[in-house]
Amino acid sequence: MRAALEEANRAAARDEVPIGAIITDEKGGIVARTGNKTRELSDPCAHAEILAIRTACESINSQRIPNYTLYVTLEPCAMCAAAISFARISRVVFGASDQKGGGILHGGEFYTQPTCHHKPSIQHGLMAEKCGEILKAFFKRKR
Amino acid sequence: MRAALEEANRAAARDEVPIGAIITDEKGGIVARTGNKTRELSDPCAHAEILAIRTACESINSQRIPNYTLYVTLEPCAMCAAAISFARISRVVFGASDQKGGGILHGGEFYTQPTCHHKPSIQHGLMAEKCGEILKAFFKRKR
Repeated sequence: MRAALEEANRAAARDEVPIGAIITDEKGGIVARTGNKTRELSDPCAHAEILAIRTACESINSQRIPNYTLYVTLEPCAMCAAAISFARISRVVFGASDQKGGGILHGGEFYTQPTCHHKPSIQHGLMAEKCGEILKAFFKRKR
Repeated sequence: MRAALEEANRAAARDEVPIGAIITDEKGGIVARTGNKTRELSDPCAHAEILAIRTACESINSQRIPNYTLYVTLEPCAMCAAAISFARISRVVFGASDQKGGGILHGGEFYTQPTCHHKPSIQHGLMAEKCGEILKAFFKRKR
């Protein structure tokens, strides 16, 4: 999560919403690390999680990365929660919860739906304060 | 929807799940047309809708494409429903419903959630039989 926080800080420096994500393989090696790039890429789908999933999948030339773990500073939204499931990622660790836009503990709670066909194990609250603080500071500067 | 069906047929020819999507601008001109490419790109996020959104956004260098319409042969999943909302697309027209994986009429019904901050207008059932038939034939061949 420390590496994900670094990526969130880098995103903030690029004037992107500061969320960072890391994917590790079965041995714990980092195979993808990135932050949000929706502005830079003019792409509303370029959330940190989506970019990390695409990088990790490309690295092994597969649509599925079971036994991989995704660390992300904020609770994934509905889009990212579903993408994580499609990629068959086995474990998700996130920092801060997102009442406004989260898709795991909030909203449609994708992993509880009959339309969800792979549910990763979930751990949340890891370094939650630091993960949330970066976002709060970013939006405070914006106002 | 005819153009989306053509894209679905092209996807089938590439051995991809046959779903096609089109995005039109405010004048009705097609700005993006594509089919699923999850296999080709080794990318679980490469649903037709996501690829079309990325193309349309890139074409005007913006994360948001309000006043655009997305046509897709199958009900968007949770990932695509959320991406459509993030892109501020104003209207979604889909063919067949998807009880197993849909995210608009099924599952978390993203657009009904308090975590959804833009709800497009929805029309469904357009050429539904043809749109569903391509999928049925594809999966029948696979078995």
